[in-house]
Amino acid sequence: MALEKQAWEKILRYLRIRDKERTDLLDDLLPQDLAEQIYSLPNQEKIEIFGLLNNEEAAIILGEMELEQQAKIISLLSPKIAADILSEMPYDDMTDLLGELKEDLKNKILGYMQSDDAEEVRELLEYPKDSAGGIMTTEFIAFKETLTVREAIKGLRELAPSAETAYYIYVIDEDERLVGVVSLRELIIADENEILREIMRTNVVSVEAETDQEQVAQMVQKYNFLAIPVTDKDNKLLGIITVDDIMDVIEEETTEDIYHLVGTSEVEGTTLVEARPFSIARTRLPWLIICLLGGLFSGSVISVYEETLDAIVTLAFFIPVIMDMGGNVGSQSSTVFVRGVATGEIPPNKMFKYFLKEIKVGLIMGIICGITIALAASLWQGMPILGLVVGISMFCTVTLAATIGTLIPLIFTRFGIDPAVTAGPFVTTIKDVTGLMIYFYIATAFMDYLM
Amino acid sequence: MALEKQAWEKILRYLRIRDKERTDLLDDLLPQDLAEQIYSLPNQEKIEIFGLLNNEEAAIILGEMELEQQAKIISLLSPKIAADILSEMPYDDMTDLLGELKEDLKNKILGYMQSDDAEEVRELLEYPKDSAGGIMTTEFIAFKETLTVREAIKGLRELAPSAETAYYIYVIDEDERLVGVVSLRELIIADENEILREIMRTNVVSVEAETDQEQVAQMVQKYNFLAIPVTDKDNKLLGIITVDDIMDVIEEETTEDIYHLVGTSEVEGTTLVEARPFSIARTRLPWLIICLLGGLFSGSVISVYEETLDAIVTLAFFIPVIMDMGGNVGSQSSTVFVRGVATGEIPPNKMFKYFLKEIKVGLIMGIICGITIALAASLWQGMPILGLVVGISMFCTVTLAATIGTLIPLIFTRFGIDPAVTAGPFVTTIKDVTGLMIYFYIATAFMDYLM
Repeated sequence: MALEKQAWEKILRYLRIRDKERTDLLDDLLPQDLAEQIYSLPNQEKIEIFGLLNNEEAAIILGEMELEQQAKIISLLSPKIAADILSEMPYDDMTDLLGELKEDLKNKILGYMQSDDAEEVRELLEYPKDSAGGIMTTEFIAFKETLTVREAIKGLRELAPSAETAYYIYVIDEDERLVGVVSLRELIIADENEILREIMRTNVVSVEAETDQEQVAQMVQKYNFLAIPVTDKDNKLLGIITVDDIMDVIEEETTEDIYHLVGTSEVEGTTLVEARPFSIARTRLPWLIICLLGGLFSGSVISVYEETLDAIVTLAFFIPVIMDMGGNVGSQSSTVFVRGVATGEIPPNKMFKYFLKEIKVGLIMGIICGITIALAASLWQGMPILGLVVGISMFCTVTLAATIGTLIPLIFTRFGIDPAVTAGPFVTTIKDVTGLMIYFYIATAFMDYLM
Repeated sequence: MALEKQAWEKILRYLRIRDKERTDLLDDLLPQDLAEQIYSLPNQEKIEIFGLLNNEEAAIILGEMELEQQAKIISLLSPKIAADILSEMPYDDMTDLLGELKEDLKNKILGYMQSDDAEEVRELLEYPKDSAGGIMTTEFIAFKETLTVREAIKGLRELAPSAETAYYIYVIDEDERLVGVVSLRELIIADENEILREIMRTNVVSVEAETDQEQVAQMVQKYNFLAIPVTDKDNKLLGIITVDDIMDVIEEETTEDIYHLVGTSEVEGTTLVEARPFSIARTRLPWLIICLLGGLFSGSVISVYEETLDAIVTLAFFIPVIMDMGGNVGSQSSTVFVRGVATGEIPPNKMFKYFLKEIKVGLIMGIICGITIALAASLWQGMPILGLVVGISMFCTVTLAATIGTLIPLIFTRFGIDPAVTAGPFVTTIKDVTGLMIYFYIATAFMDYLM
């Protein structure tokens, strides 16, 4: 959907000659497409374009970029111009962007902003970034419960709220406590003389400002809301979180989960393409070093059985297949379990039942893989007894890997620890050690027949 | 958020005595909570509850369950009752549910439905399940461009559309071609005497019915729409896809991606908790058997160097750590790349640049892991020369694993193949084989010093 080169040059010409006060640029063009185009330009041209846009346009286009990209562009502009543009953004986006900037630039920009805007943002900056308070916007529509439908519609027309916030009208009592909700649709089809209290739904699902954003996302997904209200402990309405922000949260949280499965994390404050290699390496090395120690530990299992291996060096040929299969089965089981818990497909009260099923799955796969490798090993080395040893080891390793691969994240979940964080490295080391121990133990037992 | 036992018993008592024609049950209770509760009951009680609900309530509550759960409940009811309940569902949900049923039950239910409903559903069933046509609903609001705002609002009140479809009013010309869109918010704040053509946006983003659902999801996410219109080749409006369905698509596609990373797939037509162990095992075994062959191939590398190993059996102790590290680094690189492509963080024109960066990341990690293992191996076995061999091998393995782990999914992406499908097993075998070859090649070269 990126713009054609010609179309873009036409836009540039148009921007250069037109009156900055007119706001018709975004009537025919989608801000997302402009954002993509502008960000791909050299810095000098980025500055030029932002000089040609009026503040409202600049704010809308900026709002469509990734947070890191927004911060980069704002750093290119003067703090005064940056403050003017930011003042046109919704409070939640403004707060996110300011939170991304260096401390002194942030304060300079806040200094140029109107004092009420600055005040509002300072309050929002207090909430942790990944809490409901951190992602909410304070622009919402709330009317007293005694208003008539006609008055509410009139009020709406006067406020002309921004698109993302207009779909639910929240209803509050005398003390500004949230008591109900009316969707814009319900308002428009209601009798104009009814009062809000009569048409509102009273079963409002809301979250507190401290709630973790992942939980908020799960609720919005479950109930299919377009927005969810955020309240304080006394049920006073503080803000709302809209579905477009929720989709960003879901993407972010899923990426985090997937990264944790392979023991890495995102590089803070930049995109993958722009991060320095050193920063990327730093996110992956801690887990790699742990795995390195785990790998040495697995090696020490072999060293225990040095005599067996020295006598029958052929045994070493099957180390890779035993290790690989244990690893693969283990990561399949862990990954399926972790994802099932994340999406709610495995509910908390069914976890143990699912664990028992995984053991059966492990047994089935163990039998099939065990027979396959037994035949393959017998044929390759011409030693049926070696085939038997490898086959039995494979059966035990696969069954155990499926069991351990589910059990470890299950235990982590029970103790309230994100299972994705630690399932990977633990499972890797444990399956290696157990797999190799089983293999060499069985081989040593069959020693006389193998010689 | 599940209901308390007491609250649930109160609901049951209430359901048994109340007049079925009244629909006040869902004024105070959220259908999602009821759906959860009802699904957890024994089958006989499920049937009883659905006998007590009126059709509208039954349809709403059913609509909140997973598709497989819906199909299970419908199979419990008589086809006549099932048809009555289905008739109250939006067309897209109705179609999804019917598509999930056995052929003869589906036809029986369609036979009991009103002919226009049945006709509509039969048409929707024609579209592939994961295309825009397969997930769209045909219930949308479309007005002619010559209508005034007043007439449009009046029309809306009369239609009283369902919540999910009312937020955009699509504007069509004489030939029912899509020419513009007005949001409910824009309609409500506009001058009542203006005509729709004057206030509508003309830059409507739409998709064709054949578009893949994953692409649709990406567009909705990019543009933050609450719904996206679906058209045929002549730009005639066929239906809309709403954001709640898009969130389900995103979850489904992400699960698919994650599953592919570990070489498994979802069990069709059932949930994880209810799938039979044999069915689960069958989704995982194909990849495991390929990996098993790959593991044997890796073992054959060792067999090539049997003499070296026979001479210095200590070399076997470091097989696990070399294999593990190659595997871990490879899956980190593959996973980060695949996810980056899926979320758009690595755009197509930056893939090669990112690949070069991954090589640098691999070099950095290779140096650090190489030095670490060299020191550890020297201390453990008291042989600095062995440490050197293992260290150099580790450096080469890690660097190569990062390179291969990115290169393979990069090539798959370039050829238009989903990189998640095949990155896993390929990377596993290739990194094992290269890692072991490097290790034994270097060891054999240093043979004289090691003895």
